[in-house]
Amino acid sequence: MTSTEQNFLDLMKQISAYSEAISLIHWDLRTHIPQKGMEQRSETISLLSEKVTELKRSEQMKQCITELKGNKTSPVIQKSVEECERIYQKQQSIPTDEYVEFIRLSSKSETAWQEAREKHDFSILAPYLEKLVEFNKKFAEYQGYTDNKYDGLLNDYEPGLTTEILDRVFNQLKPVLIDLVKKINQSNVEVDSSLLLKQFPKQAQKDFSLAVLDKMGYDFEAGRLDETIHPFAIGINSNDVRVTTRYDEMDFRTAIFGTIHEGGHALYEQNIDPDLYQTVLASGASMGIHESQSLFWENFVGRSRSFWESHFDLFKKYAPESFQSLEFESFYRAINEVKPSMIRIEADELTYSLHIIIRYELEKELINGDLQVKDLPEAWNTKMEEYLGIRPENDLEGLLQDIHWAAGDIGYFPTYALGYMYAAQIYNAIKADINLDQMIRFGDFEPIKAWLTEKIHRHGKMKQPLELIEQVTGEGLNPDYLIQYLTNKYTEIYQLR
Amino acid sequence: MTSTEQNFLDLMKQISAYSEAISLIHWDLRTHIPQKGMEQRSETISLLSEKVTELKRSEQMKQCITELKGNKTSPVIQKSVEECERIYQKQQSIPTDEYVEFIRLSSKSETAWQEAREKHDFSILAPYLEKLVEFNKKFAEYQGYTDNKYDGLLNDYEPGLTTEILDRVFNQLKPVLIDLVKKINQSNVEVDSSLLLKQFPKQAQKDFSLAVLDKMGYDFEAGRLDETIHPFAIGINSNDVRVTTRYDEMDFRTAIFGTIHEGGHALYEQNIDPDLYQTVLASGASMGIHESQSLFWENFVGRSRSFWESHFDLFKKYAPESFQSLEFESFYRAINEVKPSMIRIEADELTYSLHIIIRYELEKELINGDLQVKDLPEAWNTKMEEYLGIRPENDLEGLLQDIHWAAGDIGYFPTYALGYMYAAQIYNAIKADINLDQMIRFGDFEPIKAWLTEKIHRHGKMKQPLELIEQVTGEGLNPDYLIQYLTNKYTEIYQLR
Repeated sequence: MTSTEQNFLDLMKQISAYSEAISLIHWDLRTHIPQKGMEQRSETISLLSEKVTELKRSEQMKQCITELKGNKTSPVIQKSVEECERIYQKQQSIPTDEYVEFIRLSSKSETAWQEAREKHDFSILAPYLEKLVEFNKKFAEYQGYTDNKYDGLLNDYEPGLTTEILDRVFNQLKPVLIDLVKKINQSNVEVDSSLLLKQFPKQAQKDFSLAVLDKMGYDFEAGRLDETIHPFAIGINSNDVRVTTRYDEMDFRTAIFGTIHEGGHALYEQNIDPDLYQTVLASGASMGIHESQSLFWENFVGRSRSFWESHFDLFKKYAPESFQSLEFESFYRAINEVKPSMIRIEADELTYSLHIIIRYELEKELINGDLQVKDLPEAWNTKMEEYLGIRPENDLEGLLQDIHWAAGDIGYFPTYALGYMYAAQIYNAIKADINLDQMIRFGDFEPIKAWLTEKIHRHGKMKQPLELIEQVTGEGLNPDYLIQYLTNKYTEIYQLR
Repeated sequence: MTSTEQNFLDLMKQISAYSEAISLIHWDLRTHIPQKGMEQRSETISLLSEKVTELKRSEQMKQCITELKGNKTSPVIQKSVEECERIYQKQQSIPTDEYVEFIRLSSKSETAWQEAREKHDFSILAPYLEKLVEFNKKFAEYQGYTDNKYDGLLNDYEPGLTTEILDRVFNQLKPVLIDLVKKINQSNVEVDSSLLLKQFPKQAQKDFSLAVLDKMGYDFEAGRLDETIHPFAIGINSNDVRVTTRYDEMDFRTAIFGTIHEGGHALYEQNIDPDLYQTVLASGASMGIHESQSLFWENFVGRSRSFWESHFDLFKKYAPESFQSLEFESFYRAINEVKPSMIRIEADELTYSLHIIIRYELEKELINGDLQVKDLPEAWNTKMEEYLGIRPENDLEGLLQDIHWAAGDIGYFPTYALGYMYAAQIYNAIKADINLDQMIRFGDFEPIKAWLTEKIHRHGKMKQPLELIEQVTGEGLNPDYLIQYLTNKYTEIYQLR
């Protein structure tokens, strides 16, 4: 190994050490920290984050990239150089004072968002959002793009994806989803999810969640399960990947499906190739691919008929007396109820992507100047009515529900819907290799985990999302598999014609 | 404020931010981390610790010290400059390569200590300890001293203390303790601590511990209680001071007295003046003063007759049925049983200081060349027999019990005994101001906490230990108060003549 290679690895080790400390602080902030400790802690996060940024845009980093790029080095170093160059160029492209101003504005904007929510009044947020949109337009220019300005933002979250691709796939997906939702609304099949809304003690939910995580192959020697308000999974390092969940004693679905979802993210991070540890590649390929793993486990496995055929007994083992007379078919339908609703994070797997498509269409128009911030509430409500058949009564259940835009994040939303499409493609690919249904029905998840590890997890960021999907499924992004999966599943449940 | 003052404050903020991250990692390492995550985490600690060291010995720090020392600045800045200079000079005085070598050796030595313990064989540790003693001799020279080489080490843990002072106070204390122990051995009073050794469920112990912490005035909005193997308290920042404890279901004393002890440390850190936050002064005055606070609460309050007069009902509220017939007098005596034993950390409050005096006498001789490492086991066992009347059967229950020497820490042990003496002096001083016994008997701890905050806690490191003790008690270190307290207490319990 040359001394430059060694320097480069050392630099990445430093970055990963700081990132590890930051991740632990984030986990603690959302699980354990006493209230008064937060103020000073946020200063500590700022300092450590600054150090990471300094290293990523340092002269030393620039030299390493220049000297190593295209050289004959190991694939891991070569790919790391590419990733570091991408980050370096991004960091260099935005003038520091502009970025600092943007961060300050985002912070104020989040406060305004809170107030706007309390008062159900978007106009409180609007002036901040206008400025944040302008900043994002500039950032998109700095990043560069070929066809659509929005690409400059999208690429940051999902490298290689373009507005052109998204327009194409969303335009295929959207009418099918709208049509399915309409048919379901007209279906005579009664699906009653209220029979799930019975007292289920927290400790029993926790024990059940732990049992399911264990069956999924989550490694408890390299992770743990904690309680939080907004659940997440976090890789503090590759051997310490923690899951969090929330327990609602009157609705066990929050905890159990939340845990399976976050467990899917965690399996990804736990099974990255050790060769990538302490490099910039020791994480998921993209936001979208990461989401495909959580959604694969939550929906394609966790809400499947096969899964509950093998786990309904386990459920009854942990569930209190009042659930014991519940019939399998009613249960299965209840956990798969489709019901258009205002709030994205509460949406079922069918309507979820429509929520995303609305956000995508609106933010794309904002960035391209085809829509003004002041016109957002009306545009939002109109699309809700058109796609989901319901209209928000106020801004809180409308466009004030998500923090993303208020925090300055534009271009992020599509990754959620990409996750669904990737997951369906992966679901199709895995079925070609192993008898997936039967494995799920027997609760034998080891071969599934092994397949995902071999094809996806171990590669970390060694492959770009579309490259990975192409290699795993034999084709590029294709919404047909999601369409097929949802159509089959809900045609059966709601007996559609 | 001048720009140098601002630079200096910024530098200290950076140091405290890194220290905050390190403290959180330490807390997590001992409470929550999954086993496999430890390896990489230790690299992260090393990196962050290096950054702290770099800042403390940086050119920028040197300039700040030079420019600000003796200038007309605020008392906080002036005292911070003094403290930073002390650290700077210490860091500068030891050649880097020597220090690195010492750290490496300590690490190997700790591994050897583990092996030596497993095999009950000191000779496995001896060659490492010999080198560590030589390093410590050199460090003492670098630090400088007037009379005794040992002062150069002692001062690092307890600024201002000298071997001369320690010799004087320990020589006063030792014969009294030995005499009391002998008399107790001959006493006819039956104290039976075995009646405490009954099943006490963990959750009930936890609830009891939380109730006591709450009564002490511990602020749960600025802290929390977690479980660990070797209990500790840690100030992650001044508004996030966490306590940990251990639950032994067959001996509730471990948790309850451990919690009160760590709670005493935590009250100190929680009540430091906000003016000192994010400076190098935002911690206890010294190890000894810190220990005085934990011991004051654990023993002078927590093992007092008055305390249990008001808390015996609370104890019975949480204790299971089998404790309900326990009589107050038997209980009070049992929690104050004196029984010479081999292990320091299991010692009662009377024999504890004798364990410390043995260690002090031996390490002082090692540093001054009056004792060879190879002769340690015999010297240890002889002193145990002489002071405590018992002789270890092997090295594990002898000098292999503590990690301190194996970790290269020499000069630390005396601070434990100083804590006892300081605590007794403080106990005496507080009684002159408020009706302490009555407050404890009524469970009214607010005035006690307020007194300790006003006189001790809020000052952080603004005062040196002896300066603080002098101001709080009107005199310097004086073992008479501890002698008087122990004599009175145990004369009453054991009906000594």
